[in-house]
Order: sequence, then structure tokens, then C-alpha cells
Amino acid sequence: MDDAAKADALCAAAVALREDADTILAANMRDCDAGIARGLSSAMIDRLRLDAGRLAAIAESVAAVAALPDPVGEEIDRRIAPAGMTLRRVRVPIGVIGIIYESRPNVTIDAAALCVRSGNAVILRGGSEAVHSNRALHTSFARGLASAGMEANAVQLVPTQDRDAVGAMLAASGGIDLIIPRGGKSLVARVQADARVPVLAHLDGICHSFVHAAADPDMARAIVVNAKLRRTGICGAMETLLIDRDYPDAAALLAALVDGGCEVRGDDMVLELEPRAVSASEEDWDTEYLDAIVSACFVDGMDGALAHIARHSSGHTEAIITADADVAARFQAEVDSAIVMVNASSQFADGGEFGLGAEIGIATGRLHARGPVALEGLTTYKWLVDGTGQVRGS
Amino acid sequence: MDDAAKADALCAAAVALREDADTILAANMRDCDAGIARGLSSAMIDRLRLDAGRLAAIAESVAAVAALPDPVGEEIDRRIAPAGMTLRRVRVPIGVIGIIYESRPNVTIDAAALCVRSGNAVILRGGSEAVHSNRALHTSFARGLASAGMEANAVQLVPTQDRDAVGAMLAASGGIDLIIPRGGKSLVARVQADARVPVLAHLDGICHSFVHAAADPDMARAIVVNAKLRRTGICGAMETLLIDRDYPDAAALLAALVDGGCEVRGDDMVLELEPRAVSASEEDWDTEYLDAIVSACFVDGMDGALAHIARHSSGHTEAIITADADVAARFQAEVDSAIVMVNASSQFADGGEFGLGAEIGIATGRLHARGPVALEGLTTYKWLVDGTGQVRGS
Repeated sequence: MDDAAKADALCAAAVALREDADTILAANMRDCDAGIARGLSSAMIDRLRLDAGRLAAIAESVAAVAALPDPVGEEIDRRIAPAGMTLRRVRVPIGVIGIIYESRPNVTIDAAALCVRSGNAVILRGGSEAVHSNRALHTSFARGLASAGMEANAVQLVPTQDRDAVGAMLAASGGIDLIIPRGGKSLVARVQADARVPVLAHLDGICHSFVHAAADPDMARAIVVNAKLRRTGICGAMETLLIDRDYPDAAALLAALVDGGCEVRGDDMVLELEPRAVSASEEDWDTEYLDAIVSACFVDGMDGALAHIARHSSGHTEAIITADADVAARFQAEVDSAIVMVNASSQFADGGEFGLGAEIGIATGRLHARGPVALEGLTTYKWLVDGTGQVRGS
Repeated sequence: MDDAAKADALCAAAVALREDADTILAANMRDCDAGIARGLSSAMIDRLRLDAGRLAAIAESVAAVAALPDPVGEEIDRRIAPAGMTLRRVRVPIGVIGIIYESRPNVTIDAAALCVRSGNAVILRGGSEAVHSNRALHTSFARGLASAGMEANAVQLVPTQDRDAVGAMLAASGGIDLIIPRGGKSLVARVQADARVPVLAHLDGICHSFVHAAADPDMARAIVVNAKLRRTGICGAMETLLIDRDYPDAAALLAALVDGGCEVRGDDMVLELEPRAVSASEEDWDTEYLDAIVSACFVDGMDGALAHIARHSSGHTEAIITADADVAARFQAEVDSAIVMVNASSQFADGGEFGLGAEIGIATGRLHARGPVALEGLTTYKWLVDGTGQVRGS
């Protein structure tokens, strides 16, 4: 299907989601009631819950994805071969994408919309706690696609909650081209360990912020507090604060975190400067808290920061705060993470904030796509060779 | 190391290979003698054998790789984030590349040079039949790198021929970032089946050429004969010939192949037109002969050709010969292979012929790199974010 046909199908799907709101919300209520009966935490129930506003936002996001430029067909390279043929590399869909996710029912639609926009088929496998919501959302979305002439089977929901179904997806080499897990660490770890199919994912977001000696104190405090506390549960949240021994304003920096409601787990020098801090254990340096907790230590300048990051980073996002452009350039050159920031909050590690439109996830692997994965990351390319009768010499 | 330092190290390695020619050729003689004693086929011995000319060509290819542009540091994307940060994507090395290969000792050097040029470390695991050659080549190459100040351990040769070493490489997730097998189908199949590390490879090259009704007969004969017979042992060699029922010159096309020394295995219509042809069995349509044998059948125009290719292609390279530009465009749009050619011999499916410089292999997978993989395919990217103190709003 061409650009316009895919966009039209997504717009029709957005309309269908609005039309089917009552059915979808009723199905979601069943899931929420069952979850409460099963004693799910209020946080789990909140992730599961849809209301008119959330559902409207989901439909809106589908319309927004419809409005994104189609990556398929984009020419990314053109050259003339030595023998005279014209060579072009053009983007094409990857093929069949498998999405394995947990409680948030919005993933059903967000992931499906991105896959459809980029010309891929998608097989969705949601969590059992959201089974009725996911079925209602999928039925409505597929109805919308079909109403605009798209093959509704382009978006499929695994009909069973049997856990063997996940194993079958992970083993479906040749049937599924790429698997993207969306959920907690245990889900991602299982997918990465068992998949016989390529996987795009991140296991941890142990993000470091390094406050360099030459950092502006006001900027440093503002960035560090935001990086840790704006939203503590996202993968781009700062988990470890590295402070240059020569940074003059460390006490105020640490105080700002504690004053903001953050537990600071620090080394001896941190404890000295901030009596409300507690002592960090070795494992704190490898812990993704996803909470109002931060590990903090002093390092010997850039070399100390690079050594700590090389040892403890999960390769997601690291940031430096410094007014020295040469120092910033060295940090960006030597830190081997998907995203390396200078003078900005690591909470910006997000496809939307990067201006990519919606993201399907963030990848910390080294192949294909790294960092926020959006429509481009859901495509591959093929080589088109246009000759005029060339044969190869011996 | 920067561009110049890597290029200098490779030039020094080329010099070392020339200086060490006697030692390397003596080691290779040991391998060849042992191979003959073990009864290796003359084809195997020929793949194994080095002489002064072949070794000089290997050293020359290292110098040629040194002269290729360094992909590392290339900016492939630049944008301004909604919050005002500057975003850049720049190419970086993948990390540690594992190369698992068979009898050709030149792979030791060709692969090492490409990995070094692109800033990667490489772990080489060659075949036992070439063990002395590979050790001598590796020792010389590493000496050359070290003489130019490169860490010689950037290029390592697995010291043992123990088959468990291959298993250890395939399981080295986190230690090896990418494995590239170079060799026969059984080697590639084992690597693809057992690897817990990403793999770039192609299992088969079942390449189709479709002679459309509107093909120029002279061009069709020249391309088809070249695609099959120029070199029958390469992955881009044509294995199946598809002829449009409405193509007027089919008899001469088939005769040209047989006259060229090719065995033609065809359907009934082929047998009718070319009495020297033999009858094809079902499995012929899924066979990579790598020999002077071709399967051939007639198809009902474009739809018949697309259906046959979709069912039997290995996704490597397909070609159409036609004078009709619209037909050619449809073929390129609908054939889902790494390389789709118009009016050219599939024997051009090669990184050098594509003007990419040397290639490390051809990939038929759908992620990261597809078709000929050269220096660019040995890199990934990271996101560099340059802010001025931005914090993310709630």
C-alpha cells in the first residue's frame, strides 16, 4: 500500500476507536475489576485503566502517526557502479514485527499504528491482565483498517494467553522478522535470553549524569533534579550522579536532591557534604531504581567519570554538565552509550522529544537501530540496480 | 584511533605481510602438504594455496582498504529537538566482530583489515586445514599494526582448533557484538542456528533471472549466459531462469546456455524447445548448484515470475531483463530481495562491483545491513545531544 492508503487506513482506525469507545471501556472495566479482585497493586491498575480521556488520546495518537511521513520508498543512497549501473538503496518494511508487552493496553494501538505506518505486519501479544481491553482495542482497530481497504490481518492479536504462545513467537525465525518487548525487566530479559529472532530492546536504563568541575552550578542543579525527579519511573531517569572532585557547588547540588524528596545513596565524601544521605553499597552502582532514589559519588575528573560509566552504564543515556566545550566533546567521543548528552536532562531520552514522532521503544543493542526507535527503525532497505545490459568481465 | 592512525596501521600491516612473505608461504606449504596427505580435493587445495602472487594481492588489498574513507564519525543525521537541543547521529564502531571461516586464508587478512578500518576489534576463527597459514598471516598482520602504534590485540586469532571454541564464540553475547560466518552452507547454517549473538550472513544465493516478453533478445542471451557461467561458484550466480511465455526468442536463449556448457534442467516447455535439456524435479527450484547447471521454466508473465520468486528465492539477488520501464519498476517494487537488478548480470552482486570497496560478506537478513556489507555495515551510531541547560517539562 502506498503512503496515502496507509495514512487513510490509520485515520479510519482512529475513527473506529472513537466509535467503539463504549465497548472498549466496558472491556477495560472487566480487566480492571478482575485485576482488583486478583489484588493487583494500585499502580498496576492505573497502568491498566482506560477512561474516555485516555482512549481519546490513544485515538489521537493514531491520527498523529498517520500524519508522520512514510519512511518506505525513501532513497537513502544513490551511486553509479564502476560498470555503469545506477545503484539506489531504498527503504522497505522489515516484514512481520512481533510485539510482546505487559499491562498497558495503549501499547496495542501505539505499536500497531507505527508498524502499519511503516508497512509492516504486526503480531501483538499483550498481558493476560489486559486481555479484554486488548481484544476490544484490536477488534476496533482492525475494523477501522478494513473499512479503508487494508487487509485486517496485517494487525493480529495472539488469541490465547497461553504462555507457550510467547515461546512460539520467540522461536518463529523466518516467520517473525523482529521482536520488540515492551514491559518490565523480567519480560525483556526473558525475550533477550530465549529469542531466536532479532530483538530490539533495552534491559536497563542506568543513566549517569556527570557534573564536571566547569559546570554552571545553577544549570547543574536544575538538570540533575529534573533528570532524577521529573518522572522517576522512566528509563531515561538519572540513576547515578557523578560529581567531579573539583566541582565547587557539590553540597548545594546534593541538598537540592534531598530537598526535592530524593533518597541519596552516596560515598563517604557525599555523606560528609550531605548528612541526610545514606551510605551506598556496591550494588547501588548497578541498580536502576525507577524511584526517588539516586546513587552518587565523587570522581577524579573526566577520567574517573569515564571509568565509572564504562563499568556501570547500561549503554542507554549518559549526560555531562559542563561549560567547557572541549571536555563535552571528549565525553561524547568516549562514552559508548546510545545517547550522550551535554547540558541537558536525560529525561529527554525519548523519540517524541527527539522529534521523531512516536517511538516504539529505545534500543541499547548495537545493531540496526540504537536509542529511540521510531518509523525509520521499523524499516530495512533493498538495493535497486538499473543497468543497460551490463555483463561482468572475467 | 582516528582515521589517519588506522590507515597508517593498515599500511604498516601491508608492509609486514610483504616482509614476512617467506615465512607465510612456508606455513601455507605445510597446510597444503597436510591437506594433500589428508586427501582434500584439488578444489580445496586450490582455495587453501597461497603463492607469491596471491600473497602480494592480499597485501595490496590491505593497502586498498587503508585508502577507503573511514566511516567512523560520519554524521548521518542532524536535527533540532523541540526543546532546542541539537541532535546528531554519528557513526561509531560496532565493537567486537567475530569472523568464523573456512579454508581461504585470505579471509584472515581481508576481514581483519575491514574491521580495523572501521574501528572494530576482531576475533578470527579459521579452518583447521589453514591453521599454519592463518597463524603466520595473523602474526605478521598484528606485528605490522603494532609497529604503527595500534594495540595488536585489536586483531586476535583463536589459538585453538577445538570445535568448542566456535560454540564459545556463538554464545559470547555481551563479549562479541556481531558474528560473520564466511564459508559453505553447513558452516553458515550452524552459525545461524546456534548463535546467541547477532549474525550477518546469507545461507543461499538462489538467484533468479526473469526474461520478460519485452526483453531485447541479444541483451537477454548475453546477461543470462554471463549470470550463470562467468563464475558458477559465487553466490550471485544465476541458479534459476524464468522465461515469460510471451518471450519470442526462448529457444535461442536456452541453446546459448547449453552451447556454453551448462546443464539445463527444465519444465516440459523447456524440454520441447531445447532437446538437450533434462527434466527438472521439484527440488531443483530450491537448489543452489554453484555449478554449470541451471533450472529453467516458463512463467505467465510478471505475475508468474513474482509468484515463483516469492516461493523459491533466498532473498539474495533477482534480476529482470526487459525493455519496458514500467515492468522493470514493478519488478523492483514487488521482489523482496536484498538486491533487485534490471538489465544486468546477477554476477555484479558484490561490494567491489557496487563501488563500496572490499566487502566482508553479503547479508540476506532483514536487519542492520542487507546485500553487500562493507565498512558502513561494520558501524552503528550513537545520538549526540547538545543542550544549553534544557530540562524536560512535566
